[in-house]
Amino acid sequence: MSKKLTTRTEDYSKWYNELVVKADLAENSAVRGCMVIKPYGYAIWEKMQAELDRMFKETGHQNAYFPLFVPKSLFEAEEKNAEGFAKECAVVTHYRLQADPDKPGKLRVDPEAKLEEELVVRPTSEAIIWNTYRNWIQSYRDLPILINQWANVVRWEMRTRLFLRTAEFLWQEGHTAHETKEEALKEAKLMNNVYATFAENFMAMPVIQGVKTESERFAGAEETFCIEALMQDGKALQAGTSHFLGQNFAKAFDVKFANKEGKQDYVWATSWGVSTRLMGALIMTHSDDNGLVLPPTLAPYQVVIVPIYKNEDDLNAISKVANGIQADLRAKGISVKYDDRDTQRPGAKFAQHELQGVPLRLAIGPKDLENGTVEIARRDTLTKEIVALDKVSETVKSLLDAIQENLFKRAFDYRASHITEVDTFDEFKTVLETKGGFISAHWDGTNETEAKIKELTKATIRCIPLDNKPEEGVCVFTGKPSKGRVLFAKAY
Amino acid sequence: MSKKLTTRTEDYSKWYNELVVKADLAENSAVRGCMVIKPYGYAIWEKMQAELDRMFKETGHQNAYFPLFVPKSLFEAEEKNAEGFAKECAVVTHYRLQADPDKPGKLRVDPEAKLEEELVVRPTSEAIIWNTYRNWIQSYRDLPILINQWANVVRWEMRTRLFLRTAEFLWQEGHTAHETKEEALKEAKLMNNVYATFAENFMAMPVIQGVKTESERFAGAEETFCIEALMQDGKALQAGTSHFLGQNFAKAFDVKFANKEGKQDYVWATSWGVSTRLMGALIMTHSDDNGLVLPPTLAPYQVVIVPIYKNEDDLNAISKVANGIQADLRAKGISVKYDDRDTQRPGAKFAQHELQGVPLRLAIGPKDLENGTVEIARRDTLTKEIVALDKVSETVKSLLDAIQENLFKRAFDYRASHITEVDTFDEFKTVLETKGGFISAHWDGTNETEAKIKELTKATIRCIPLDNKPEEGVCVFTGKPSKGRVLFAKAY
Repeated sequence: MSKKLTTRTEDYSKWYNELVVKADLAENSAVRGCMVIKPYGYAIWEKMQAELDRMFKETGHQNAYFPLFVPKSLFEAEEKNAEGFAKECAVVTHYRLQADPDKPGKLRVDPEAKLEEELVVRPTSEAIIWNTYRNWIQSYRDLPILINQWANVVRWEMRTRLFLRTAEFLWQEGHTAHETKEEALKEAKLMNNVYATFAENFMAMPVIQGVKTESERFAGAEETFCIEALMQDGKALQAGTSHFLGQNFAKAFDVKFANKEGKQDYVWATSWGVSTRLMGALIMTHSDDNGLVLPPTLAPYQVVIVPIYKNEDDLNAISKVANGIQADLRAKGISVKYDDRDTQRPGAKFAQHELQGVPLRLAIGPKDLENGTVEIARRDTLTKEIVALDKVSETVKSLLDAIQENLFKRAFDYRASHITEVDTFDEFKTVLETKGGFISAHWDGTNETEAKIKELTKATIRCIPLDNKPEEGVCVFTGKPSKGRVLFAKAY
Repeated sequence: MSKKLTTRTEDYSKWYNELVVKADLAENSAVRGCMVIKPYGYAIWEKMQAELDRMFKETGHQNAYFPLFVPKSLFEAEEKNAEGFAKECAVVTHYRLQADPDKPGKLRVDPEAKLEEELVVRPTSEAIIWNTYRNWIQSYRDLPILINQWANVVRWEMRTRLFLRTAEFLWQEGHTAHETKEEALKEAKLMNNVYATFAENFMAMPVIQGVKTESERFAGAEETFCIEALMQDGKALQAGTSHFLGQNFAKAFDVKFANKEGKQDYVWATSWGVSTRLMGALIMTHSDDNGLVLPPTLAPYQVVIVPIYKNEDDLNAISKVANGIQADLRAKGISVKYDDRDTQRPGAKFAQHELQGVPLRLAIGPKDLENGTVEIARRDTLTKEIVALDKVSETVKSLLDAIQENLFKRAFDYRASHITEVDTFDEFKTVLETKGGFISAHWDGTNETEAKIKELTKATIRCIPLDNKPEEGVCVFTGKPSKGRVLFAKAY
């Protein structure tokens, strides 16, 4: 905890990696590409989960749980989906270990315990879930099905980074079934909107809602809606996706229903998910060279109180005041921790809480006792003020609101100044290299042009914004006609 | 939903299986031995989780998350633990599928994507966690570590049953690290006590706290504490366990710390868990031939209101009354559902809610409107009463309390009448076959006798109760001296 973080300008990527570990959020494990989410990091994820879960239930969804494993024959049923995930699947082939006859004390796979059919560890659950839905759906009366599951999934990524891209990650996946195309489309958009609301109001992270181009679509989807955020290094991050799956999975798994006219029809589907990747987005949106910066909504504790004392008598007197403040704050629904550890000096405590992004730090010393004051320090602005004891709880309350607002505004302003309209490819490349951010440019609508631009610049089309204005123009790369701008960026 | 359940006396096992499926709790999946937990069943599990999570946090524990996979070399490090679980491990050997050259449209394991080291899908997480703790613990200042994780685990059981024994199940596993043996033992007992409190106060399920004999201990534990419940068919069910692991895992993973005297010592450990098996225990403790019976604490909704009407006008008038009742009940913190579906008749609704164990059913018909009354039916006793409208919310509140109490009392009385002291082996066998339940008998303390009794009768020692009175006696089987009785039973 002693050494300073690498700064963002020195090496943004190194800054991120160090921050995640030093702030006790997560660390790499003994399993290639899999992380350990530490208690402090997990407490933030739990707060995200609780709010998302509330929002899902408020929009009529219920939780359920489906198996971790997908038999290979189900996995391969929806061809595009299978093709999209085949290259990164963990596959269970055996169900037993046995003593290794050649190595005393060691185990080996029992060659006689080979599974008849291999099991894929779910990279996503459309296959296993639609195979189940077939038995649940006979008639329009059984629809809609609005289900979500909180689960772990595995995608065998070769290059991993804590939270951003890990072989195993935690997520939620909604899987819904509908009578009509319109209803399914509406659901996919609704959930994308839920994600946007969550990101902005709860994570204080502005996002752009859009649709993906064909090449960036989820494998097996007809349309992928997304929320795209912008990190402080000018790279975009896909923070959540919501897919309109058409009838693809219904056809692959033969899920039909009798509609109101009594005719058999295939069911319409959506799926949508956000993951522990949001933790990476949160960190990179708000944090600074001193460490993590957390919006009060997501802080494991919003306020920490640090006593500054030389002897036991001082501490007792300070603790009395601190206990009163704690009670007041808790009564207002504010979470607070009194850090009276005697193993650490105040300076070390200040550094730790700064590194871990506690929104407000209250310090109380002997002078404060004399004056009836408390020192309050804001993590977001690193500013301090002295506040009279009887004003502490209302000041804290209004400062927490101010921090939440300030973090959103700061991120919003950064993003606003990093959306650049360009009309030539030279400009495109210059902006991308010097400034980064979203580049708003005309595109001819073809996969080829998109691929070529990616090859030349590493920038991809992040999305076609939902609120796009129609605008006649010509493709920044080919000069062919275009009817509107799309957003390019380098991305995580 | 139409056909009646098999009764418990006809076939208890069949009754259970039918009930789980018909009450929409869970069903078998396409993956051998793995279940789908349906929304209604999952909602009950979520309530269990929420309460347990609260109790864990109240006793100072934090949540975290560790990888799903355990590299084989870590898995085999603690020898007894490895031996105990090796026979039922799902093993990942490959990380990629590819197009099968022989079968168009099919996939196969890519033979070139073989893992250097096999990965065991966690059957329990001691190995991966203690390998992590090694880096977290240097000094006594880093102790205790009090961590819990909510996760899925896989044990490749050959004979599976919904909730009771499934290849994949959901659970929580606490893993704590301590300075001293005393502290670790205290923790193991504390958590067993948390489980007992939860089982009795929340699930309305009486349990006996005890310790396991050596042969029934968790693989790798020095002592296993447990809570044992009794099902309505006279079979016992282990509902939760808490293990004192000694220094076994610390030694296997070389986890040492500098103690207060500055000397290096191995860390002391505990682990403890309950799983979705509790759902099976809940069902079998309270339910009857009409279906599920739920304690109000765990019911997805505690009250259902069913309107009885012939025309739209009636329905409107009833809905007005029902809305008022709903508002009153919600204000009292009672969860309520107004079942005004027009696709079902009241009789079908009654049957469904009875099958699904809703604690209280309110019915309102035109006559009730005239009289200013409501009919309230209790699920546990199947009794009904007519209540004046202005008494409904207080009656509901007190009935819910009464149901919770009655369920516990009923289960307690059943158990009390099914603990039989026996002093001869003939008596032992007769009681076991005719009456079942717990048999309290003297045992000579040897593994051999225990094994022999199991072989002859299928009864195992469920536990040595913590509140056992010392009593001189002779072993019911060998006649050798014994210092106290233990509890035998056939068990799930």
